[in-house]
Amino acid sequence: MNEQADIVYLDANATTRTDPRVVEAMLPYFSLYYGNPSSKYALGGHAALAVKRARERVQALLGAAQPHELIFTSGGTESNNAAILSALEAAPRRREVIISAVEHPAVLSLCAWLEKNKGIRVHLIPVDRQGRLDIVAYREALSDRVAIASIMWANNETGVIQPVADLAELAKEVGALFHTDAVQAVGKCPIDLQSTMIDMLSLSAHKLHGPKGVGALYVRSGLRFKPQIKGGQQERGRRAGTENVPGIVGLGIAAELAAAAMADEDIRVRGLRDRLERGILERVDHCVAVGARAERLPNTSNLAFSFIDSEAIITLLDRSGIAASMGSACATGSFEPSHVLMAMKVAEDAVRGGVRFSLSRDNTDADIDRALEVVPAIVAKLRAISPFGADDAPRAVGRSSGSAQGTPHV
Amino acid sequence: MNEQADIVYLDANATTRTDPRVVEAMLPYFSLYYGNPSSKYALGGHAALAVKRARERVQALLGAAQPHELIFTSGGTESNNAAILSALEAAPRRREVIISAVEHPAVLSLCAWLEKNKGIRVHLIPVDRQGRLDIVAYREALSDRVAIASIMWANNETGVIQPVADLAELAKEVGALFHTDAVQAVGKCPIDLQSTMIDMLSLSAHKLHGPKGVGALYVRSGLRFKPQIKGGQQERGRRAGTENVPGIVGLGIAAELAAAAMADEDIRVRGLRDRLERGILERVDHCVAVGARAERLPNTSNLAFSFIDSEAIITLLDRSGIAASMGSACATGSFEPSHVLMAMKVAEDAVRGGVRFSLSRDNTDADIDRALEVVPAIVAKLRAISPFGADDAPRAVGRSSGSAQGTPHV
Repeated sequence: MNEQADIVYLDANATTRTDPRVVEAMLPYFSLYYGNPSSKYALGGHAALAVKRARERVQALLGAAQPHELIFTSGGTESNNAAILSALEAAPRRREVIISAVEHPAVLSLCAWLEKNKGIRVHLIPVDRQGRLDIVAYREALSDRVAIASIMWANNETGVIQPVADLAELAKEVGALFHTDAVQAVGKCPIDLQSTMIDMLSLSAHKLHGPKGVGALYVRSGLRFKPQIKGGQQERGRRAGTENVPGIVGLGIAAELAAAAMADEDIRVRGLRDRLERGILERVDHCVAVGARAERLPNTSNLAFSFIDSEAIITLLDRSGIAASMGSACATGSFEPSHVLMAMKVAEDAVRGGVRFSLSRDNTDADIDRALEVVPAIVAKLRAISPFGADDAPRAVGRSSGSAQGTPHV
Repeated sequence: MNEQADIVYLDANATTRTDPRVVEAMLPYFSLYYGNPSSKYALGGHAALAVKRARERVQALLGAAQPHELIFTSGGTESNNAAILSALEAAPRRREVIISAVEHPAVLSLCAWLEKNKGIRVHLIPVDRQGRLDIVAYREALSDRVAIASIMWANNETGVIQPVADLAELAKEVGALFHTDAVQAVGKCPIDLQSTMIDMLSLSAHKLHGPKGVGALYVRSGLRFKPQIKGGQQERGRRAGTENVPGIVGLGIAAELAAAAMADEDIRVRGLRDRLERGILERVDHCVAVGARAERLPNTSNLAFSFIDSEAIITLLDRSGIAASMGSACATGSFEPSHVLMAMKVAEDAVRGGVRFSLSRDNTDADIDRALEVVPAIVAKLRAISPFGADDAPRAVGRSSGSAQGTPHV
């Protein structure tokens, strides 16, 4: 079972390795303290207490005012769906929703469905070439017809961070709710919900070294929440179904570990990411770091390689033991270019060549050394056989190395 | 951490201990094969293969025709919600639903909401005193206005089994879909979906010694399914969100273990249950075994003790190290008598005294010995201090011991 241990895993935005300390903490809740938290006897009480402690740990990570502002769910997608559907249900006369063009499929697909089937008007706010939301367009879309604005905290493909605290304040001015898909931000950058006007926030355990299959939705105290999964009275009647006790315990520990490591890892992981990004830009022509001029997560680098296809790069990287991706794992299967890179107007010859490298606290200097050895060679090899290879490119374009953006390729 | 190991756990219908072999199988998928199944590199492929194998294992347990008839979900409640909501969405002109009066809160709460908020007519079909569905009323409710009939395979509080294969055929005659909440049946009684006309079936891993937080919805091939959680293309576009790989692996192994053990455990657990039930009926006056004349799950005994409150019994049982419950853990917090016992017209002096004992393959003869020692003493003690104690009961009622039903108390 060790053959997987040698890979260089640079796809932390898709999922992370569950921290062994998280697994350790989960273990007793499978076969020892296995009670149903709703049961009134001691074994159930023990499980309920574990859920309570996990809720407090997540509360601490987010700076939420109260533990019961957290509703445990099955993950980020369920949380995102629940937030938007609840907002529309709670304000039936508000029939508009605002989202960005670079949201995760969990938000985009739901909104496309709402538009087509429920007559909801969806404002798709564009972003600039660095992936930053067009604030003027956002302001213009806000009105008392808007039930909810849902703008992601940090983009999964590029790591670009949106000014969600400011966006929430603007939404409040028209009485709209503000939700943020913070699946990529939680655990990677400091969050203090009490100092913001954000109403709802989605997170997923497996993006921060917790287990898959569990997440949470923060719902500000006092907000009218409409449950989407109905049944028992779990989660104060806001999310029915027996609690995933081991998963929730794991999320709690993952939150605690992330909080403790965040400051140091921000510096260390950012250093690794910058070395990777600079190193590739120095070694590879016709390559741009997408969104690198914007404020970004410390762990993400999206490099768009002109003239070649990201799928080919990723396949060859895999053969060399490096895991990276072309964007959202949730969008895999589609042959369209990334909607995020399209929205950022990445140049036509590079928009199909975007590779996302996303790091975590598991990565080491050796991982970066290996990537810097392998990536340029693969790009060169693919360009040599590409019908639209770099050799055919206008020489005038020159090297874009060292320049994170602003070249004709962005 | 061993203090929990000594309890006599007789609440398997609330949740079961995750089998250590299940946990063992899950473990590598947390920190070793942690890839996202949607990722295209080897680590993702490994996870995808594990999900595929788990799907085949669940398929085998259910006798489903194809693995992709199974959609993995976060559990029984989500599956039940998804089945009913999908059916209504797929047939917008059919605005009626049929359920039984003894369904789980996951079905009852959703249908109450649909009736109140969406104008859906809900036919609540009564049961007889043994908990068996009123087939005449069921037939009468069926029409071409019915989108779906959802009748549980086996009741969580009494174990009473409904003739779901027959009910499915009747539903087909009017073009309605048939769904069954089989959360309590799967793993406890043989299921062969290919030989039935059941369209959809819900199951939950933690009821069959699998982990909490994962379940499945069977959807017959060819049926138009409308996803309730929208986003990525996981589960063939029918349930978005990163797959809970360890949980799904655990469900697969739990299904395999249940299939292998079922025939033997049916005999052994049934024997334990019968010894417990007969033993208590012999030792305790004014007590009836609810639904004992109907076909029941082999593991469940619901005993209604006249003149005392089940909550008090359960509290004292807990102090003696025995875990039992008054019914659905999902309904805990409500002070109403059990809706199931009410629907079965259990006598007024006993309807608040129902205690559910539910066994699993973890139980031993020693557990039953202990319960037979403790339960009669607790009932006697409580009745001695009860304002409506047995001493005040009309002497004419006599002992109901040995008679599973038919006394004035049923």
